Amino acid sequence: MERSFSKQKSSSPSEGYGVEDLLYPELWKACAGPLVDVPKISERVYYFPQGHMEQLEASTNQELNQRIPMFNLPSKILCRVMNIQLLAEQETDEVYAQITLMPEVDQTQPRSLDPCPSEPPRPTVHSFYKVLTASDTSTHGGFSVLRKHANECLPPLDMTQQTPTQELVAKDLHGGESGELRVGVRHHVRQQSSMPLSVISSQSMHLGVLATASHAVATNTLFAVYYKPRTSQFIIGLNKYLEALNHSFGVGMRFKMRFEVEDSPEKRFSGTITGVEDISPHWEESKWRSLKVQWDEPASIPRPERVSPWEIETFVVSVPMNPVQPLAAKNKRPRSHVEIPVPETPSSTASAVWNPSHNSHQVTGCS
Amino acid sequence: MERSFSKQKSSSPSEGYGVEDLLYPELWKACAGPLVDVPKISERVYYFPQGHMEQLEASTNQELNQRIPMFNLPSKILCRVMNIQLLAEQETDEVYAQITLMPEVDQTQPRSLDPCPSEPPRPTVHSFYKVLTASDTSTHGGFSVLRKHANECLPPLDMTQQTPTQELVAKDLHGGESGELRVGVRHHVRQQSSMPLSVISSQSMHLGVLATASHAVATNTLFAVYYKPRTSQFIIGLNKYLEALNHSFGVGMRFKMRFEVEDSPEKRFSGTITGVEDISPHWEESKWRSLKVQWDEPASIPRPERVSPWEIETFVVSVPMNPVQPLAAKNKRPRSHVEIPVPETPSSTASAVWNPSHNSHQVTGCS
Repeated sequence: MERSFSKQKSSSPSEGYGVEDLLYPELWKACAGPLVDVPKISERVYYFPQGHMEQLEASTNQELNQRIPMFNLPSKILCRVMNIQLLAEQETDEVYAQITLMPEVDQTQPRSLDPCPSEPPRPTVHSFYKVLTASDTSTHGGFSVLRKHANECLPPLDMTQQTPTQELVAKDLHGGESGELRVGVRHHVRQQSSMPLSVISSQSMHLGVLATASHAVATNTLFAVYYKPRTSQFIIGLNKYLEALNHSFGVGMRFKMRFEVEDSPEKRFSGTITGVEDISPHWEESKWRSLKVQWDEPASIPRPERVSPWEIETFVVSVPMNPVQPLAAKNKRPRSHVEIPVPETPSSTASAVWNPSHNSHQVTGCS
Repeated sequence: MERSFSKQKSSSPSEGYGVEDLLYPELWKACAGPLVDVPKISERVYYFPQGHMEQLEASTNQELNQRIPMFNLPSKILCRVMNIQLLAEQETDEVYAQITLMPEVDQTQPRSLDPCPSEPPRPTVHSFYKVLTASDTSTHGGFSVLRKHANECLPPLDMTQQTPTQELVAKDLHGGESGELRVGVRHHVRQQSSMPLSVISSQSMHLGVLATASHAVATNTLFAVYYKPRTSQFIIGLNKYLEALNHSFGVGMRFKMRFEVEDSPEKRFSGTITGVEDISPHWEESKWRSLKVQWDEPASIPRPERVSPWEIETFVVSVPMNPVQPLAAKNKRPRSHVEIPVPETPSSTASAVWNPSHNSHQVTGCS
């Protein structure tokens, strides 16, 4: 998380974030985790109805009724991203994005990559994350951070005081106090948010999602989706898709894939492709989860039996590979103690991002 | 609320209610209020997509985009009620029903009334309701009920004690302690439940509802709806519809209509029909809110500018009518004091129903 900022203002949490609020997207991305890819405005993407259905099945805890009409929807829809709002669920802190898409008139699969949009340069942002344990969320209400992180990210202490202390004011993903320090909570992946199901039936939700995309394609009009990238990444950049499909995938091929695991931000697991086939008879030739896989080793986290080509990196077997594993944070150096009230959510990760061009003293508040 | 019971068992709140749990539907109806009409299993009804859209607009706080496809859905769909589950929102106590409907193969409007299904006889159930005020929900945590209500509905006190007291155990709409005493909370009408909107877009919800009904009609299959009768009564018994349509409605006709008001269970307001016309160009000849009306007097509650024929009673102008107004509960007789913990919801109504065949001593708990 090394990104850049020029200035930053507070904005209403209900409106997501303002254009001036450049720290917010960084906190959002820190809370979304390292494996989440969010498209950029004006980028061309493929929207996968099958992936959207998966998100809905996870949200409603109901499997899709396979007998519902599919509205002759293609398995992927080429769209341009018209708008993105980065948001978080009020109750669960789960990050999501409201993305407005415009289907392209010509749905023919492009043969060449789109030019990469130039991004404005950004000054450095310091950030760190910490896996929360039961003692971090005890009634005492404080936790320790590494001195390195405190030096990098927190305003300096006045060391002339007998017991140097200071109050920190921070915003979380929902807003809160105005400030230049941000704290967010990322829950372990697979932890679903509870939702009331009494608005419309889950079947109506499934039909609604399909009918919305179908209507937008037929009439060349905008449509909006709620995108929960920690549940299902069903919007894939056109270039990412084309680059992945440049490779051929066959039974027996070896691959690696990144996952979030308990004690490190990500870990690569390796496996073998055991089948290349459609996952659903409704969407023939779809690349969505078209690869059946077998994993080399057992793991404590759930891993899919089918993956999409753009999720994996294939490698040649002749060279023995060790899965790359980031260093676990077992640093025993002295830590500075900072009082940061956190919600009682053991086995969550708190992320903090800080704009070093500001020096105000503010509290880290998690709503 | 004078209904009857034979026996009663506790059931899991998440499953709604068991067939043995006959007290639950009575409490549900008490919480739904006197103006709510719920169809019966195996009854034939008309389902009005327009009314369902109104409920959705209220739930999502978003107006229906008039440019979405309507799937050539008729304005009313003749269905048989296959199943009903009476439920309440976990967070807001708002009553709703999950109703499973089967569209009739022959959608021709019947010319005669359906036979009324015979209902099993029911023993008496005593109940009362009380409008909660700020003092009822103070930190003291108790409120007074009329001696009449206490005598009728609560287990008798042991008057040989110096200070006769007793604990009451009651179930609310979500379950709780097992017992034969029930307490529910009815909020003022128009108070909408807050809902997270981040599952699917409101446009997808609208499309989903329409596509669901359209698919069910086309394929003669069951479909389920969440019915919030305090927001929109879009399922109308066939007989009620046919009886209402037996009358002719014309401009200038006088009518009365019942509403819930703050200090009495219901009140009739009178008005004049000022127009008979379609409310939406998508559904021609629909009777849903086909009558434009003008109300005689101003009122503190919101009243619609358009009503459906089955909601009103017409009357002849020659006889001057006074709106029937039930007695407000201004009884000054001595009250017995009963400690009933209630949630802090001023301007709500607590309803209690009691099965006199049981005599267990239990607490009135509102979750």
